[in-house]
Amino acid sequence: MVNLTPNSSFSLTLRLQIPNRVGMLASVTHAIANSGGNLGQIDLIEQTRHISIRDITIDAASTEHAETIVQAVKALPDIKVMDVYDRTFNLHRSGKISITSKIALKSVSDLAMAYTPGVGRICTAIAQDPEQVYHLTIKQNTVAIVTDGSAVLGLGNLGPAAALPVMEGKAMLFKEFAGLDAFPICLTSQDTDTIVETVKQIAPVFGGVNLEDIAAPRCFEIETRLRQELDIPIFHDDQHGTAIVTLAALINSLKLVDKSMNEIRIVINGAGAAGVAIARLLRKAEAQTILMCDSKGILSLQRADMTEQKREFAVEQNGSLADALKDADVFIGVSAPGVVTPEMVRSMAHDPIVFAMANPIPEIQPELVTNDVAVMATGRSDYPNQINNVLAFPGVFRGALDCRAATITTTMYLEAAHAIAELVSPAELHREHIIPSVFDRRVATAVANAVQRAARQEGIARD
Amino acid sequence: MVNLTPNSSFSLTLRLQIPNRVGMLASVTHAIANSGGNLGQIDLIEQTRHISIRDITIDAASTEHAETIVQAVKALPDIKVMDVYDRTFNLHRSGKISITSKIALKSVSDLAMAYTPGVGRICTAIAQDPEQVYHLTIKQNTVAIVTDGSAVLGLGNLGPAAALPVMEGKAMLFKEFAGLDAFPICLTSQDTDTIVETVKQIAPVFGGVNLEDIAAPRCFEIETRLRQELDIPIFHDDQHGTAIVTLAALINSLKLVDKSMNEIRIVINGAGAAGVAIARLLRKAEAQTILMCDSKGILSLQRADMTEQKREFAVEQNGSLADALKDADVFIGVSAPGVVTPEMVRSMAHDPIVFAMANPIPEIQPELVTNDVAVMATGRSDYPNQINNVLAFPGVFRGALDCRAATITTTMYLEAAHAIAELVSPAELHREHIIPSVFDRRVATAVANAVQRAARQEGIARD
Repeated sequence: MVNLTPNSSFSLTLRLQIPNRVGMLASVTHAIANSGGNLGQIDLIEQTRHISIRDITIDAASTEHAETIVQAVKALPDIKVMDVYDRTFNLHRSGKISITSKIALKSVSDLAMAYTPGVGRICTAIAQDPEQVYHLTIKQNTVAIVTDGSAVLGLGNLGPAAALPVMEGKAMLFKEFAGLDAFPICLTSQDTDTIVETVKQIAPVFGGVNLEDIAAPRCFEIETRLRQELDIPIFHDDQHGTAIVTLAALINSLKLVDKSMNEIRIVINGAGAAGVAIARLLRKAEAQTILMCDSKGILSLQRADMTEQKREFAVEQNGSLADALKDADVFIGVSAPGVVTPEMVRSMAHDPIVFAMANPIPEIQPELVTNDVAVMATGRSDYPNQINNVLAFPGVFRGALDCRAATITTTMYLEAAHAIAELVSPAELHREHIIPSVFDRRVATAVANAVQRAARQEGIARD
Repeated sequence: MVNLTPNSSFSLTLRLQIPNRVGMLASVTHAIANSGGNLGQIDLIEQTRHISIRDITIDAASTEHAETIVQAVKALPDIKVMDVYDRTFNLHRSGKISITSKIALKSVSDLAMAYTPGVGRICTAIAQDPEQVYHLTIKQNTVAIVTDGSAVLGLGNLGPAAALPVMEGKAMLFKEFAGLDAFPICLTSQDTDTIVETVKQIAPVFGGVNLEDIAAPRCFEIETRLRQELDIPIFHDDQHGTAIVTLAALINSLKLVDKSMNEIRIVINGAGAAGVAIARLLRKAEAQTILMCDSKGILSLQRADMTEQKREFAVEQNGSLADALKDADVFIGVSAPGVVTPEMVRSMAHDPIVFAMANPIPEIQPELVTNDVAVMATGRSDYPNQINNVLAFPGVFRGALDCRAATITTTMYLEAAHAIAELVSPAELHREHIIPSVFDRRVATAVANAVQRAARQEGIARD
């Protein structure tokens, strides 16, 4: 069992009744700290002469850990645990997004303009000039987030209903970081033809489609076919969002170790959607030597068990991930918890770069190789250098929709990666700061501008 | 050409530069009034010693009429028309609805709870207990507004993109009147099987489906099949919304003329979605004598050109709409502008009730028969007694979703109609006030309560 740092995903709030005596609150905070809980906000809810009621927020490392903390507080004499809230569950009650009207509907006149009969004039205008749908409706600012629930986060095939919280979260991110209106479409079927057909059916409302958490290799065909059959941008975030941010992080890491893309030896572990897309984009970015591995080891020409996408990266060499890592300059993990050992890292070339992006538990815990690596990045927010798709997808869609790009191209991915990398100035660049923070508000705009520039250069902007 | 009253659907704002001299503003308002425009808001935008800039809002009766008004103002000496805004078009720029986040995303901790890794706990909870999707996601409060654009308002088959402004308007109404989150789904195909299949595919996100502006007879099969194949409420508003509000209006009209449902002779003109649903619901409400007409006259057993739904109402009698109306107590029109003449109304029984609901131009202009009818209602907001679906659908879905009704039943329709009718107290009941106003905030709640009560009585509430 990997020992995790407490974090907000296991955050709880205890409502406590505490006697107003010296040392009582201290006994509570001691008990929490001794159980390994991370103390957060402490709010005073109510106070009388004899008692105080306080809400104490605590980050735990797991559900079991949260329970241990609660028991430790309950064991204290004179302290009464009035309520225990799971903050993550509380925040999800009734869902996380809402559909609102931009215009007040308070009078008959409002109704006559926004609804019948006035709306009929707008319908007629669009019927006469189909381009007007981009000006007179939500289409230009609206993205479908489409999933079949077959590869939800790192949790696997949970189905469409269980995938919905992720899609809602994604919609929040689209709004927060790029002002885009995104809506979750969770599909009953996991059949490729059905998914393609359904997305084509619902396309009229949307300016773009973000594919999400669809398992490989199905995701490749779905994306390819939708790109061919629809005239709006299609983007599979698990592939291209991950690839863009990984490339951005690698560009800056290479500056730190003074190596160049075309000389380095790169090992990618995980040959699903993300791994394949990263490998493809790194090749476009001039990487010459890439060894791809899956759970069975190096994708070797000698193997007979590979998908079309895996064969694309097959090499002569055979062997395990450990074999691949010997003398490698870069490790990129989009695979599974704990599959890399400190020994493997120490077998890499000098100044190794390790991106251990498996979520929530990385391929190797950063603490284990702090002094052995030049740069370490993960997918987690509680370590430095978080490689997070949020840096890419909001800006990619903002840029593509603003210029009405007919599609999204590899040039856009490359430009977006460079735009992200450049936001870390030479003065700021450091082994613990190779990419901008998720909350760096310049990112989405920089990415959007880069994408628009690429669209105009390639002649696919329509607005 | 029917002469229409000016209304807000043809509303424009003129920005004028007017010299500060006695009588100048008066010359503008005169010119507008003389052209038949309805003066609304007059705003002072800017004023110097010599001139004022004012925004003047005017309702016109048509696009041509708006142009006539603008020309009349332009012809005035010394008045400069700086800008002309079409208010309905302006209001529709970039669409009318927006998707917003219910929770601020301002810190790493917010992200860790609403998105990864915290969201993974919610996904797992739903995967383990599928019922949780109703508690931990948007599903329970979310409605799909589904159309194929084949019967957009009274405008016909404009297709899915041109239908989108209506669906956005509907989403606004769902929010405004019932607090529901509704999202437009406009489908590429107009094929029955494809529509059914697509709705089934996207169902996981939605707590209910509102079918909208789908042409008859296809709409009947689509609704029937979706009701069989999905376990969430399916409601075709053009059918049942119209039927509920029509029944409510008729219940109250009959009180005024002191006739009872099972004695009266009812003529329904228009045998599409609305006409058929009205006839079916009136039968359930004890109406005995209903003559249905379409554009070819009475649906007679002697005709060979009828759909299954039309045959359901076929009678021995043959003839025209005029023949049907002789001695009828009630006319219900869901058909086309101007098809009823004053003579036809005068041929009806004593105290005739006329619901001329064709939109935007009724079957007969109310002014033409003011003294010949006991009660007149239309679908328009600028005449008394507006029969508007907004009185029904928000409350129907609010009620059905709140108790997680597995389906929507005829009993619910009947109860909803009675609930709407009862909101007009005996003291208020008047030939120009047979139904509550669209803005009567009691309506949605009364309808929701009636629907929930019916659901519990019928044993189909699941919450």
